[in-house]
Amino acid sequence: MNSGPSGVPALPPDAPGDNGPAVSRREFDVLFESVRTWGRWAAADRGAWNRVTPGHVQRASAFVRSGTVVPMGLPWNTRTGPDNAKPALHYMSDLGDVAAEEPSAYKDFIAADYHGKGVSHLDALSHIAYRGQLYDGRAAHAAVDSGGARFGAVAALGPLVTRGVLLDLPAALGVAWLEPGRAVHPGDVAAAEKALGVTIGDGDAVLLRTGRFRRRRDLGPWNADEASAGWHVDAVPLLAERAVALLGADGDSDVRPSPVEGVHSPVHALAITAMGVPLLDNLDLEPLSAACAEAGRYAFMLVVAPLNVPGGTGSPVNPVAVL
Amino acid sequence: MNSGPSGVPALPPDAPGDNGPAVSRREFDVLFESVRTWGRWAAADRGAWNRVTPGHVQRASAFVRSGTVVPMGLPWNTRTGPDNAKPALHYMSDLGDVAAEEPSAYKDFIAADYHGKGVSHLDALSHIAYRGQLYDGRAAHAAVDSGGARFGAVAALGPLVTRGVLLDLPAALGVAWLEPGRAVHPGDVAAAEKALGVTIGDGDAVLLRTGRFRRRRDLGPWNADEASAGWHVDAVPLLAERAVALLGADGDSDVRPSPVEGVHSPVHALAITAMGVPLLDNLDLEPLSAACAEAGRYAFMLVVAPLNVPGGTGSPVNPVAVL
Amino acid sequence: MNSGPSGVPALPPDAPGDNGPAVSRREFDVLFESVRTWGRWAAADRGAWNRVTPGHVQRASAFVRSGTVVPMGLPWNTRTGPDNAKPALHYMSDLGDVAAEEPSAYKDFIAADYHGKGVSHLDALSHIAYRGQLYDGRAAHAAVDSGGARFGAVAALGPLVTRGVLLDLPAALGVAWLEPGRAVHPGDVAAAEKALGVTIGDGDAVLLRTGRFRRRRDLGPWNADEASAGWHVDAVPLLAERAVALLGADGDSDVRPSPVEGVHSPVHALAITAMGVPLLDNLDLEPLSAACAEAGRYAFMLVVAPLNVPGGTGSPVNPVAVL
Amino acid sequence: MNSGPSGVPALPPDAPGDNGPAVSRREFDVLFESVRTWGRWAAADRGAWNRVTPGHVQRASAFVRSGTVVPMGLPWNTRTGPDNAKPALHYMSDLGDVAAEEPSAYKDFIAADYHGKGVSHLDALSHIAYRGQLYDGRAAHAAVDSGGARFGAVAALGPLVTRGVLLDLPAALGVAWLEPGRAVHPGDVAAAEKALGVTIGDGDAVLLRTGRFRRRRDLGPWNADEASAGWHVDAVPLLAERAVALLGADGDSDVRPSPVEGVHSPVHALAITAMGVPLLDNLDLEPLSAACAEAGRYAFMLVVAPLNVPGGTGSPVNPVAVL
Repeated sequence: MNSGPSGVPALPPDAPGDNGPAVSRREFDVLFESVRTWGRWAAADRGAWNRVTPGHVQRASAFVRSGTVVPMGLPWNTRTGPDNAKPALHYMSDLGDVAAEEPSAYKDFIAADYHGKGVSHLDALSHIAYRGQLYDGRAAHAAVDSGGARFGAVAALGPLVTRGVLLDLPAALGVAWLEPGRAVHPGDVAAAEKALGVTIGDGDAVLLRTGRFRRRRDLGPWNADEASAGWHVDAVPLLAERAVALLGADGDSDVRPSPVEGVHSPVHALAITAMGVPLLDNLDLEPLSAACAEAGRYAFMLVVAPLNVPGGTGSPVNPVAVL
Repeated sequence: MNSGPSGVPALPPDAPGDNGPAVSRREFDVLFESVRTWGRWAAADRGAWNRVTPGHVQRASAFVRSGTVVPMGLPWNTRTGPDNAKPALHYMSDLGDVAAEEPSAYKDFIAADYHGKGVSHLDALSHIAYRGQLYDGRAAHAAVDSGGARFGAVAALGPLVTRGVLLDLPAALGVAWLEPGRAVHPGDVAAAEKALGVTIGDGDAVLLRTGRFRRRRDLGPWNADEASAGWHVDAVPLLAERAVALLGADGDSDVRPSPVEGVHSPVHALAITAMGVPLLDNLDLEPLSAACAEAGRYAFMLVVAPLNVPGGTGSPVNPVAVL
Repeated sequence: MNSGPSGVPALPPDAPGDNGPAVSRREFDVLFESVRTWGRWAAADRGAWNRVTPGHVQRASAFVRSGTVVPMGLPWNTRTGPDNAKPALHYMSDLGDVAAEEPSAYKDFIAADYHGKGVSHLDALSHIAYRGQLYDGRAAHAAVDSGGARFGAVAALGPLVTRGVLLDLPAALGVAWLEPGRAVHPGDVAAAEKALGVTIGDGDAVLLRTGRFRRRRDLGPWNADEASAGWHVDAVPLLAERAVALLGADGDSDVRPSPVEGVHSPVHALAITAMGVPLLDNLDLEPLSAACAEAGRYAFMLVVAPLNVPGGTGSPVNPVAVL
Repeated sequence: MNSGPSGVPALPPDAPGDNGPAVSRREFDVLFESVRTWGRWAAADRGAWNRVTPGHVQRASAFVRSGTVVPMGLPWNTRTGPDNAKPALHYMSDLGDVAAEEPSAYKDFIAADYHGKGVSHLDALSHIAYRGQLYDGRAAHAAVDSGGARFGAVAALGPLVTRGVLLDLPAALGVAWLEPGRAVHPGDVAAAEKALGVTIGDGDAVLLRTGRFRRRRDLGPWNADEASAGWHVDAVPLLAERAVALLGADGDSDVRPSPVEGVHSPVHALAITAMGVPLLDNLDLEPLSAACAEAGRYAFMLVVAPLNVPGGTGSPVNPVAVL
């Protein structure tokens, strides 16, 4: 018999590509209201990161046991491809030949329009507006202009240290990966918590593994904007109840195509705009999956250290799990 | 009476701007040989980071006590100035108007030729060659070309979690800052260890605070390439003995002007090329100085998470201390 | 006795740095109305370039006599300086080593935020709005967003071939250069036309030489945003009467500091926004000055070929005079 | 009966995709020697542009008759695609909101790694080395490093004004386009000269139209690196005999795949490296084809005005034909 991690019997294979049930715009708006935390925090720019107190940091550090360090940042990808429409740039600016001195220096230039599917990055609260409003009800056009974001900038977030939980769905379900288009529901969370022996709690960073990069390695790249496994909006109330601080994924958290009428990235709108929960997109969670399986536990200390970009709507990042 | 941190009596004020004693090229080469660790590690790309074992990570996590998180990354600086010759770029690529959809997205593009004085960054082992050789004796021209570094790339380093020590010289010496050009010697290390109540040990990341950004705030920017406080080469044998893994500074570690005949960045050559010790340059150590003073201790958990750039000679970073 | 070009007696030396007379905002608005050409052309994006008919092109070609070709583009400047706040970028992307094939290829990457004082460039009609309106009365915020300009883009301009006239003020006035801050008035035009033997006519491109780059060569760079020789607004009605198609300069056409209350670039607003006349900024007119002096004539065929950037507010250019 | 331009009876349709005959490396090297012009010109950086004297410029201006101006630059393409592997960048750097002043300014940033298939550009003599040598026998590695090209830079070329000839093969052959992979031979030149009523002469810029962008419009984009119509090397001796100054094409001049064993871009090597003839790649020749057909003549004044990039291996350009 097929078995999942830790010898737990595997759940039945998932139904590939089922992004449903469909959700009307009206239902979505009700949901949006129900999870809204506007006005809750004085440091509104930091949204749900306000949940992470020094006590949470201390507790997170207690999850360091084996001393294993696992990064999650994808390689900086300068080649176009089905899942890399805006390739990052990397040029050498000095090959030890610009100045003929000792020592000689080798230097480079990097650049990225990092939002999209190709770069591991953090979405700050200025990244997404719904019905013209950013988190906390700020008027988006007044808050963000060509000089950058005056509310919700990544520089206001700063770094995050908290407990991370890997919601390793393929491991929990005993499959290699979730098929693109497969929505993740509250029942999946319950099943994964049980199978993985972990419970999502307040101030946690929840990292959803769908197996995207395992599938990509085996089957090649595809356009993740058209089809990705990810959260269905029906799971968001549970995440709100649990008072999470951060959501991350190997995709971009949203199941695609969107099940919500007229809303292309509903989980972005709910998490970032309604709840003030930043997102981590395009994480390579394969090494972390292996490390958690080996350690037999799915909780760890997580450190996210975005670049300090004033006015930035996010940042390329290389988040680190310490087990 | 003037007193330093922890009530320790302040040391006499430093002699501003003394970068000596002068060192001949021959003396430098002898020094280079004496601290060289070439051939020591199988994973040569990671140099002295090989010193940091899982045990070091565990011990570092034990330094998390108050749960205070302190970032060190300078603001991404897009304006030229005396200490910012290659301004970083930051442009908005979408102001919610490229696609008229819900939710609307705000996006940006960032870029930097980050080596220099304006961006907080990590130097990987491919950054510096001395007499044509990179760390471990690799021929620089064979190892690095316009496609990037095949040896010593930042992607080979990955993240670092280890004990960090703030060598807060101004705090130890009871001054506001070290004057540009002031060399830091072994005696300063001893004095600082005593004053700050900390001892540098193997696998540590040593962060040298000279007070650069305090001085900049009070007196305005200056060309740090011409005059910076930093390590004199005579301190490097002590750092080698202590088996440090990483050196960082609010400058770029080197005292400038260089006291070494014909070598403009001798500490770069010794640390990176001879010893395999990466450098962290241009850290804003002011908040960390305040946090350490408040906590009354100068050791903490340090996390450095460079971007995963294959072939990169380093990376912009936002290192994080967790106290 | 000091003499100007063609042996014409030199005019008295100019009064350095006199940017006056001062102009009130109300006077400026009256002037703006008086030179406005909104609604005049169906192809409104091209503004005054509509004046240049095939007949003008034919006539321009008749000014080709000696077959001398003179470019006006400044070197692409990647170094910051007092007059280069946003340095252009130039990185090698391949040094024949990315692919080990025959033939080997050497490639590069260029970039520029070209508006400013450091890059020779063309301003398209989307570059400047006054009181919220672009040329032809288009609402600026509706016409230009983060996707680019939908009205007045440089791609709508395309190239221009017309008669160019070098208004070589230093040559006409018998001075080495006009001092920064010196305003150019209608009387200067009359004097220059007489001294140089040329008359500005309809459809002409008028290039104003102030000697900026001669002065820069002799005295070093300065912040041209603070002080530049250039047109006073009192000369604009004359240029409007003459029905010019294009204005260019070795500065950016505006005398700086601005003599107009509350309007930092009044000639930009009058030329681009009111009259639909694109501007060429930061031209190196020194070689052209020498060529015209040698040829004894100040009219020629001018070719401006901006990059075909859809939505662009202008383009770096290398305009060419053919004498 | 099907007829070509000017009522000349159409030639039989071309054989699509025939890139042959195959050429051995040895034959290629003999050919390379036979067309080599190394050592011929003092201003070696300018190669065959030395052929263009003031007399040629004068004669070119005599081809201006109707006063029609036709640009050839492709739109700056920021989207990836089968024929745009390195998308150009275009970001708005100011939307009139960075400074709240009058007038308000709209500004943008452009960037490109322009060699490739997506950007209309000029190849300077530093772009291509064969067997380690640039044009004139210069050692490539000594001449070009990460600081740019010290020999053969585009800044040394400057602008070109000369007679342009459109070798409109589809028009001459009475077809819509040449199929990708179709090689152009000396017989095609003879046929086109006859059909189009034009004879290639010394100092001419020869623009080869294969109909690439007509085909792209009708059938969609394809990977032009894999299959393009272009010159077979057997036509190069004829072009050398005619003493051309510049070759341009709607592709990149080379037929692809290459018919030459072990040489991926043989026409690049022959033209640029052996003959010192710069290339214009990726020109949109559709408007020029229509203009020439309408005018009933295929010769015109051509102006190429590359950006003045010191050390640049070429430049994005928008060449202009004046008929």
